[in-house]
Amino acid sequence: MNNFVYDIPVKVYFGENQLGNLSTELKKYGKRVLLTYGGGSIKRSGLYDEIVAEVEKAGMELFELSGIDPNPRIESVRTGVKLCKEEKIDVLLAVGGGSTIDATKAIAAGSCVDFDPWDFFSKRTPIEKALPLITVLTLAATGSEMNRNGVVSNPETQDKIGIAARALLPKVSFLDPTITYSVSKYQTACGSADILNHIMEVYFNMNQDLFMLDTVMEGLMKTVMKYAPVAMREPDNYEARANLMWASSWAINGFVNGGKQLPWSCHPIEHEISAIYDITHGLGLAIIAPRWLEYCLDETTVSKYYQYGTNVFGIDPSLKAMTVAKKSIEMTADFLYNTLGLTSTLSEVGVKKEDIPTMAQKACGNDIIHGFKDLNQKDIEKILEMCF
Amino acid sequence: MNNFVYDIPVKVYFGENQLGNLSTELKKYGKRVLLTYGGGSIKRSGLYDEIVAEVEKAGMELFELSGIDPNPRIESVRTGVKLCKEEKIDVLLAVGGGSTIDATKAIAAGSCVDFDPWDFFSKRTPIEKALPLITVLTLAATGSEMNRNGVVSNPETQDKIGIAARALLPKVSFLDPTITYSVSKYQTACGSADILNHIMEVYFNMNQDLFMLDTVMEGLMKTVMKYAPVAMREPDNYEARANLMWASSWAINGFVNGGKQLPWSCHPIEHEISAIYDITHGLGLAIIAPRWLEYCLDETTVSKYYQYGTNVFGIDPSLKAMTVAKKSIEMTADFLYNTLGLTSTLSEVGVKKEDIPTMAQKACGNDIIHGFKDLNQKDIEKILEMCF
Repeated sequence: MNNFVYDIPVKVYFGENQLGNLSTELKKYGKRVLLTYGGGSIKRSGLYDEIVAEVEKAGMELFELSGIDPNPRIESVRTGVKLCKEEKIDVLLAVGGGSTIDATKAIAAGSCVDFDPWDFFSKRTPIEKALPLITVLTLAATGSEMNRNGVVSNPETQDKIGIAARALLPKVSFLDPTITYSVSKYQTACGSADILNHIMEVYFNMNQDLFMLDTVMEGLMKTVMKYAPVAMREPDNYEARANLMWASSWAINGFVNGGKQLPWSCHPIEHEISAIYDITHGLGLAIIAPRWLEYCLDETTVSKYYQYGTNVFGIDPSLKAMTVAKKSIEMTADFLYNTLGLTSTLSEVGVKKEDIPTMAQKACGNDIIHGFKDLNQKDIEKILEMCF
Repeated sequence: MNNFVYDIPVKVYFGENQLGNLSTELKKYGKRVLLTYGGGSIKRSGLYDEIVAEVEKAGMELFELSGIDPNPRIESVRTGVKLCKEEKIDVLLAVGGGSTIDATKAIAAGSCVDFDPWDFFSKRTPIEKALPLITVLTLAATGSEMNRNGVVSNPETQDKIGIAARALLPKVSFLDPTITYSVSKYQTACGSADILNHIMEVYFNMNQDLFMLDTVMEGLMKTVMKYAPVAMREPDNYEARANLMWASSWAINGFVNGGKQLPWSCHPIEHEISAIYDITHGLGLAIIAPRWLEYCLDETTVSKYYQYGTNVFGIDPSLKAMTVAKKSIEMTADFLYNTLGLTSTLSEVGVKKEDIPTMAQKACGNDIIHGFKDLNQKDIEKILEMCF
């Protein structure tokens, strides 16, 4: 069992009508705020007007950067950094899902240095400082609202790379489940698959860590499986949206890791797919995960699947471990493809088989992913082939 | 479902040999540190020497306040406050269990005001400021290492009262499971009963909140039930001590509450017993809890017991709800009295029946505890009578 440091000082306002506290929080961090967001949905929903009113209430000056895309690009980050430097921005306010928040984290860090922000990604230049960041979450999925991570794409180099630093932790995040009422059935499904996979990447690990954290992860997985279909059926079901939203933050804020330090497997593979094909991250994960589970199952790993199958799906514990394991993979696939209705193959989303070697090579960085099971390029190629 | 604010910025170093980071953390907060502790056990174990070495490494000046008792007294707090003011202490370092940490929280607050610190308790004077506090935990039980609460006794008035304030949150806590290897079988049992009851006080609540948090609480309760007997049998079992320790913090740091705001029931009752009889808090709770569960069970509450029985104890869900409920209470009592081996009656710990009305009256403050079930003085008297 490894040691760890728990350090997640993000303050969260959870619930309906909590945005009235935004002005109080914003003005703690200065006078000039840069609001970042994606498309026009926050204008149509009225959220934009609420935000602007809060900035005015705080007596602060508002600047804006819109048009941050899903799978956000380094170009948006560069534009944001330029704006922050020119306008001497004090605090960033990201309103959106993971893409907007991730890009804004990179802007926050890039504004404190003199070099190109892509260096944080390509050269792994450590991030020591960042402008303070406040987020208003509009989609339960990536957990970026409560963690120190961000992922940005560079279409020129076909790279999609993550950064992580304590300085990137949002100071405050606003989680209002009613804001996610307008999230489409499809995006709700993709977000839920993303949350589920964040937990699986930690849970499936043969270095047994704290049992207590395994029980928490099992609870989070059960929560996603219980409420994702409810939210898809009844988009304005508060209970469902609230459970998915809070689960998304706790799936990946670091708490469930404890001392587990293993690299993830599905995420690096998916990043290489969406770096080329720009598919929705959660969908890519949904296609990969069951195949990865299938590929990693053997006598050395079966006990973890047994635990998963009996505790999360309630499979009869008196069955043989291998039977429970196989059934748990089937039930995972059934949840993703039938309950959530997600596409089950890469061919259906337009991925070409000839890109498999390149994607596999980049996913493992010409090395081995020492995750749940060691995966080299050949292993990843096989997993990707299973997705067709 | 109520709104809530999540705000727990405590940094935790978890694991063996993490104490080497103490000097780095301490010196962030000034030059003069007051070390607080209870009896001489930390001297016998060598922990005291480690702490002193860290203070020296930090180049700080060390002051000491020892002799903080279980069920800590306001007199210790007053002594500590005097010392802090006279010696211009910058930061407090509490090394101990809940009693030492709770008393030190009151010292931290008392050092920032001109009035008697008992006013925080008796007059509910709000706590706005406190000296920074770092803790080194030696007993998994109260969760004080990660929350904003403290309880102190006043033998003169036979009061035992709690305070709560954000300013009382420790800045940093060190949780080294190996430090708890020396905790006796009996104290391990009492501590585990305390952790379990903290969860029950939130879990048993008919205002359904986030399902996700219920799954977390069920996981925490299973963790305590799994590892308390292991730690009693094998005091130096790292896995058992680690699970109990981290569970103790998360049982009562506020996370599992979500939007639940109901007053607790067993704790105020127990406080009145230990205010007079000075029994161990966890033992008092262990005696009360099953009787409280029994007293509160009826057609309106049975669904919560059913959830508890099936999810925590794995009782057959096809049984009638009332059958599951009764069985879950029996199994709780069996865990506390047989597995943990705790005393099951108040008579055995010397409590006199004639004190029941006074204790009951004080527990509800001449009013009603609007908890899981409303409890007035007569109800509490009945619950206490069931404990004989």
